[in-house]
Amino acid sequence: MTTRQLTEQIKKKQSFLCIGLDVDLNKIPKHLLTEEDPIFAFNKAIIDATHHLCVAYKPNTAFYEAHGLKGWKALEKTMMYLNVKHPEIFTIADAKRGDIGNTSAMYAKAFFEDLSFDSVTVAPYMGKDSVEPFLAFDNKHTIVLALTSNKGAFDFQTKTVEGKELYKQVLEISKSWKNARNLMYVVGATKAEYLTEIRDIVPDAFLLVPGVGAQGGSLKAVCKYGMTKDIGLLINSSRGIIYASNTMNFAEKAAEKAAELQSEMASLLP
Amino acid sequence: MTTRQLTEQIKKKQSFLCIGLDVDLNKIPKHLLTEEDPIFAFNKAIIDATHHLCVAYKPNTAFYEAHGLKGWKALEKTMMYLNVKHPEIFTIADAKRGDIGNTSAMYAKAFFEDLSFDSVTVAPYMGKDSVEPFLAFDNKHTIVLALTSNKGAFDFQTKTVEGKELYKQVLEISKSWKNARNLMYVVGATKAEYLTEIRDIVPDAFLLVPGVGAQGGSLKAVCKYGMTKDIGLLINSSRGIIYASNTMNFAEKAAEKAAELQSEMASLLP
Repeated sequence: MTTRQLTEQIKKKQSFLCIGLDVDLNKIPKHLLTEEDPIFAFNKAIIDATHHLCVAYKPNTAFYEAHGLKGWKALEKTMMYLNVKHPEIFTIADAKRGDIGNTSAMYAKAFFEDLSFDSVTVAPYMGKDSVEPFLAFDNKHTIVLALTSNKGAFDFQTKTVEGKELYKQVLEISKSWKNARNLMYVVGATKAEYLTEIRDIVPDAFLLVPGVGAQGGSLKAVCKYGMTKDIGLLINSSRGIIYASNTMNFAEKAAEKAAELQSEMASLLP
Repeated sequence: MTTRQLTEQIKKKQSFLCIGLDVDLNKIPKHLLTEEDPIFAFNKAIIDATHHLCVAYKPNTAFYEAHGLKGWKALEKTMMYLNVKHPEIFTIADAKRGDIGNTSAMYAKAFFEDLSFDSVTVAPYMGKDSVEPFLAFDNKHTIVLALTSNKGAFDFQTKTVEGKELYKQVLEISKSWKNARNLMYVVGATKAEYLTEIRDIVPDAFLLVPGVGAQGGSLKAVCKYGMTKDIGLLINSSRGIIYASNTMNFAEKAAEKAAELQSEMASLLP
């Protein structure tokens, strides 16, 4: 999917919501545990109930890997379902990968080709040659961790490196990488006030913003400081939506939560 | 496995060699491709031929994920084989993971419990709360990327942060994390001259050292600047050993290459 198509979807649906599919068997409704594939059954119900309210889904790979073969199979089935039933949806593998060149190329193949994700999150610590193999794929997007929403973000990301915070160096330096047009960035909503300066460095790039809701960030502030003429924002919510209820009507309750966010987003769109 | 047991194995085998199981179907001998599980068949042959010459194996998870379900199954089988046949071997999941707390906990479970690895590599960019969930496991080891062996290491890792290079900040700050005794670090052999200063910060920690051989680092220099009284080094070689030959006797040729390194290591041990 191109960023232009993504922007079109956002305008059409009046939503820039991304729903995080972080499926934890301890948190999903008990009645699903007797299904052959409880993780997929949960995802399918959530997707069926919410796909018209969001433009993206983001499975975090950790939650699937934690179940070994079964988890990997559930991820494959979820992606197959999304690609066949909802090709208009932007998909994000929240994998936070990053390795030396030939190894990053293997990860890129796994997520972009085998699983057909539109995008994947990557960690910048190993630098240019760990990220460029991902950038080589046309119409696929590489979402670099810049400023994350956790407390540990202050351990290194906000430290000053040659006169500028590390996360700003990441933004700045990554712009010179080959096929940098395929870059997006993770910027936590808990730090919305940082967005003005971030937009000075990457005025047009799409930002994937976690931390609205559960982690306390404000949607309004993120839009005020981060929105571009092509919107340029994907706001992620995971637990706040998918675990809104763990009763029989969990999907309906998830849709209610998603609709609340979508409606707030519609009011913030130009 | 405890670090004490690891040191005992090193002294017993006169080797601190780690063999990287980065299995690429384009590089393994053609005759294995007709096997039911070519990746496992390759790993088994390499392990059978080299286990007495090394103390550790390090599958890089990218090479398994690139094959989806089949790859994951091959990784499970490889770990099962190692744990049953060679419990004295130290196993490293070269996964370079790192995510917010509850997600890192899922990864830790996947690698330490489900796959029974002794250790896993993690990226430090997201800070303390992304690494501590791994450190919470007793007798399991968390190997933090400090200074990697690729060119991109100079993009951020060697930049000066508050008067000290970023990788030194990572070493220094990580020492204050909970259960820091379970930390090890990745330090590339291509930068052996950095080891003196690294040992000033982490005098006792085990270092996993890639980049000897293929990437041009010198074993002698690494030992000179990095060895501790408990050895404290694991030297990784992947391609140089496992792809020494792609003929019928590939395992024998791999053992010859491993034996060369082991013999050089024996001469460098106290």
